[in-house]
Amino acid sequence: MTVARWTVGVDFGGTNVKVGLVTATGRVAAVTQLSSTVVGRPSSFVEGVAGAIEALARGVGSRATALRGVGVGAPGCVDVSRGIVHSVVNLSGWHEVPLRRLLERRLRCRCIVDNDVNLFTLGEWRFGAGRGAHHLLGLTLGTGVGGGLILNGSLYRGPTGSAGEVGHTVIERRGPRCACGRRGCLEALVGTAAIVRLARRAIRHGAEPLTTLVHRAGGKVVPRLVGRAGRAGDRLAKEVWVQVGRRLGIGLANFVNLLNLERIVIGGGIANNWTLFAPTLMRTIRTEAMGVPARTVHVVRAQLGDHAGIVGGAVLLWSTIGRGGRQARR
Amino acid sequence: MTVARWTVGVDFGGTNVKVGLVTATGRVAAVTQLSSTVVGRPSSFVEGVAGAIEALARGVGSRATALRGVGVGAPGCVDVSRGIVHSVVNLSGWHEVPLRRLLERRLRCRCIVDNDVNLFTLGEWRFGAGRGAHHLLGLTLGTGVGGGLILNGSLYRGPTGSAGEVGHTVIERRGPRCACGRRGCLEALVGTAAIVRLARRAIRHGAEPLTTLVHRAGGKVVPRLVGRAGRAGDRLAKEVWVQVGRRLGIGLANFVNLLNLERIVIGGGIANNWTLFAPTLMRTIRTEAMGVPARTVHVVRAQLGDHAGIVGGAVLLWSTIGRGGRQARR
Repeated sequence: MTVARWTVGVDFGGTNVKVGLVTATGRVAAVTQLSSTVVGRPSSFVEGVAGAIEALARGVGSRATALRGVGVGAPGCVDVSRGIVHSVVNLSGWHEVPLRRLLERRLRCRCIVDNDVNLFTLGEWRFGAGRGAHHLLGLTLGTGVGGGLILNGSLYRGPTGSAGEVGHTVIERRGPRCACGRRGCLEALVGTAAIVRLARRAIRHGAEPLTTLVHRAGGKVVPRLVGRAGRAGDRLAKEVWVQVGRRLGIGLANFVNLLNLERIVIGGGIANNWTLFAPTLMRTIRTEAMGVPARTVHVVRAQLGDHAGIVGGAVLLWSTIGRGGRQARR
Repeated sequence: MTVARWTVGVDFGGTNVKVGLVTATGRVAAVTQLSSTVVGRPSSFVEGVAGAIEALARGVGSRATALRGVGVGAPGCVDVSRGIVHSVVNLSGWHEVPLRRLLERRLRCRCIVDNDVNLFTLGEWRFGAGRGAHHLLGLTLGTGVGGGLILNGSLYRGPTGSAGEVGHTVIERRGPRCACGRRGCLEALVGTAAIVRLARRAIRHGAEPLTTLVHRAGGKVVPRLVGRAGRAGDRLAKEVWVQVGRRLGIGLANFVNLLNLERIVIGGGIANNWTLFAPTLMRTIRTEAMGVPARTVHVVRAQLGDHAGIVGGAVLLWSTIGRGGRQARR
């Protein structure tokens, strides 16, 4: 019997931890979710992931020992070479955690840990909207604005692994205060909080149906409702997205001018409102970026949805041990 | 007799064309200058450079045929792989000029052509203030603000060779109009025109000795005088440089966050006022860049002065044909 060689991708997000079995062709064969609050501590994270892998392996009629390895994306600051998670956003129990070692000891297979946005970028690059590009920015839009860079055909990390902090580049130096303490960061202008701020202003100016939608939802303004209102024809809600497109366009034009990118792949929850902001975004890049780089770049929507991080985990592992080689045993 | 193997670096600037003989250790053994107005057309440029090389070779007791090759930096848009200069800033005679082919035919040795800021960056990286760094930004401050990137230990050009346009990244989206037509570009905030604007405001507020210096110089405000006034203790002139340091710091912090750079090497005429703006610049990067990348990066002043481009021309050539190989003959 040929033992199937599965690779596991783990996407450690703010709300939940997704664990998936990835085939050698980048398909997610099975996936399960754990609550991030349940597996919030490093020890319970390792146990939770191990249990999830065993259950997934049983589900596809395989054994957990038939694993090629595990690639994990964590939402924080990660030392890839040493496999250490310096910190995780909003989780205090994660401080200098040797996650790779903990996982390898428990799972008895090769593991590798990186930043979650790098995994998103790797997944989309190899199997999603970034296929074929050699110079690419992967961008996630949500509460935070994150980025991963593929330059000259490989993931660019920089000397200490922190490259890609696109959310904290300033495009309006006297602009609104960012969660990071600075002013006018891209995240402060197009992240969830910025969209909510723009939407509240629209509501004060009588935006309909946005006001009704928010009222029905209990008064809480969230980007999803601003998107629904825009698609329902709310003029002021639509204007919010035009603003987002313009601001994001200025920020992305900076990266296009600096790096002469071929492609920008945009994902994350906010990207679900693509049709509302993308036309302005693309027009802004055309006018704000310089001639040659503006004509070179293509801005596209991510294709792998919730699975980009899982697939990226597998791509990350393969970048270390190869995709088709022998099963790594310990 | 051993024929010395010279490499020639050519730095095509706005005012003059510098031609230098570079030894294998990156030393400029001899240099000559031609007026850019005299050699303004492509044909006279080629003849002027050929004549200069012959004169230089005679000067060091060598023959022009003992050349390893020539590396040329042009202030404009260059297609390196095809050796074509698309355009040169402020010179209308340069449009789609096959400069590499023209030079090779005339000089009968290997030639290579790139953007002038890339040559500055290559020169400083190999033999100047950038030695040993693998992730570096070379920055030239003057009328224009230009950049060259060394990433993962080699010059990063991007898919169409336009990477490094740091001067046209926006840090103040409603800021002053830039020569490129956009608003709030780094060049519009720290280039010569911006410094002159800040200095004029200082003069209106009674800056002394700046006002006297400008008056003696015939009324023309230039950054050099603002520097002299600052060093002479003019409080308002000093404040101009603090502003420049702060603005530049915000722009450079963006690149530090995005690329996790190890080093930033700053040259160009404006860098002569280093002591006046560098302290504020460094403080701003420390506060504006994120923790890990802010601690990683070192910002230093260029070391090769006027010779960076010439040395960079030799480095560029060596990156193609090697430094120590046999003389390339045609």
